[in-house]
Amino acid sequence: MYTATTQVRVRYGETDQMGYLYYGFYAWYYEVGRVEAIRELGIEYKKMEEEGIILPVVQLTSKYIRPAKYDDLLVVKTTIPALPKAGLIQFECEIEDEEGTLLNIGKVSLVFVDKATRKKTTPPAYFIEKLRPYFETAPA
Amino acid sequence: MYTATTQVRVRYGETDQMGYLYYGFYAWYYEVGRVEAIRELGIEYKKMEEEGIILPVVQLTSKYIRPAKYDDLLVVKTTIPALPKAGLIQFECEIEDEEGTLLNIGKVSLVFVDKATRKKTTPPAYFIEKLRPYFETAPA
Amino acid sequence: MYTATTQVRVRYGETDQMGYLYYGFYAWYYEVGRVEAIRELGIEYKKMEEEGIILPVVQLTSKYIRPAKYDDLLVVKTTIPALPKAGLIQFECEIEDEEGTLLNIGKVSLVFVDKATRKKTTPPAYFIEKLRPYFETAPA
Amino acid sequence: MYTATTQVRVRYGETDQMGYLYYGFYAWYYEVGRVEAIRELGIEYKKMEEEGIILPVVQLTSKYIRPAKYDDLLVVKTTIPALPKAGLIQFECEIEDEEGTLLNIGKVSLVFVDKATRKKTTPPAYFIEKLRPYFETAPA
Repeated sequence: MYTATTQVRVRYGETDQMGYLYYGFYAWYYEVGRVEAIRELGIEYKKMEEEGIILPVVQLTSKYIRPAKYDDLLVVKTTIPALPKAGLIQFECEIEDEEGTLLNIGKVSLVFVDKATRKKTTPPAYFIEKLRPYFETAPA
Repeated sequence: MYTATTQVRVRYGETDQMGYLYYGFYAWYYEVGRVEAIRELGIEYKKMEEEGIILPVVQLTSKYIRPAKYDDLLVVKTTIPALPKAGLIQFECEIEDEEGTLLNIGKVSLVFVDKATRKKTTPPAYFIEKLRPYFETAPA
Repeated sequence: MYTATTQVRVRYGETDQMGYLYYGFYAWYYEVGRVEAIRELGIEYKKMEEEGIILPVVQLTSKYIRPAKYDDLLVVKTTIPALPKAGLIQFECEIEDEEGTLLNIGKVSLVFVDKATRKKTTPPAYFIEKLRPYFETAPA
Repeated sequence: MYTATTQVRVRYGETDQMGYLYYGFYAWYYEVGRVEAIRELGIEYKKMEEEGIILPVVQLTSKYIRPAKYDDLLVVKTTIPALPKAGLIQFECEIEDEEGTLLNIGKVSLVFVDKATRKKTTPPAYFIEKLRPYFETAPA
């Protein structure tokens, strides 16, 4: 398991007239969480795209527990629960407010796709290499 | 079961550099679908809010089957599969392109909440009245 | 002068906690206005891009006169005041509510750019041909 | 004159299929710049709203010099050129990339409005007090 944490502050334009962070923006925050999580591993999503691999989303699940509000400085905790398998990777995301109250849980599945052919492909070797140490079982 | 259909055209600002409709915007389209679906029933979400009931989302699931692209005129088919129960309502959403190819499936659960107290409440009587005819079993 | 009109309904996710359409979304509506205005002329922006010409924005001015609100069905009136000149085109946009009250005025300048080289270019011939009839002075 | 600087990283969902930051999102970045600029002065926009004063935008001008791209870590330099006057405040915003290249210039005018009556009002006394030191002429 690999986990990384980043912060996102709720922007005015992301609130709605209910006074809450609009439900559609959580997906954007999960994205920030993913990108920063792999950046901390030494992987730049941007470079992976430039090298010809894109990572479109195939499945999203969000559970809205408590509303986030304007100007909240949210903690976005992103977990990769397992190594990519069959060209698919999962990210789990917990969003908490500054007091540590859990507001939202997200799960996102993405597939590695060849940018030129738009066909499913395998992750780059370095992607797996960077992740592997977090998934090795300790020697008995 | 109640179903209604509306159209949404993909805006330039909703695409991403992959050349697809960004995955975060589907939730916005489901919202358009919901609002138009109940408008066709004679219910204005806006008025319901003015009367003191808001409808925050508690659960969202999206399955991304094929990408939507810039300027696509999408068909958003919204279904209410059952009458609201325990203050909760579900909407199911199928998004197709102009050729009728299924691109995306969404499920959204929302709760009726009192705007003043921010506590769970029951749907307005007229909301149920407008929906009821679609859920009555035919006489034997 | 060429003018065309389209409608845009304010989405919930486009409001902010002030209860107004967020100021950043007007630029999106101008875009819808531009695209529909040239579509009515028989020009598809999407095709122009596929043929290798993109149209990035170089200047934007917005005047916010009265707020637009959730669920408002806005009238977006888009005017091309002059034929493109030196690879630059201007669009003027007036946004009114259903009662015809003027809410917002926008002016956007864009340049024709070669998608491959990202250098300034001239508009496609058909673009000018479609527009020209609206700018010809009546014979004396 | 008062100037403050903050950083914003371009999110994937903010790019468009041109591969640039969508022109509509600059207004969002100006907003982040404004809020952080006054936070550094010790003013929380959020609190000002809670106390009953909102700050809607009345005028926006953007000049797009060079495109911002995905994952760019932009520097947002926000300047308040003068003390609020007649209930109106101006913010000027320069957005640079990490190398210090100027990408975009924005000017935004906002008015202090009473949240309850939605009428123009004067800025809170503390707002002026916090700003004043930056606008006092040095003694001769």
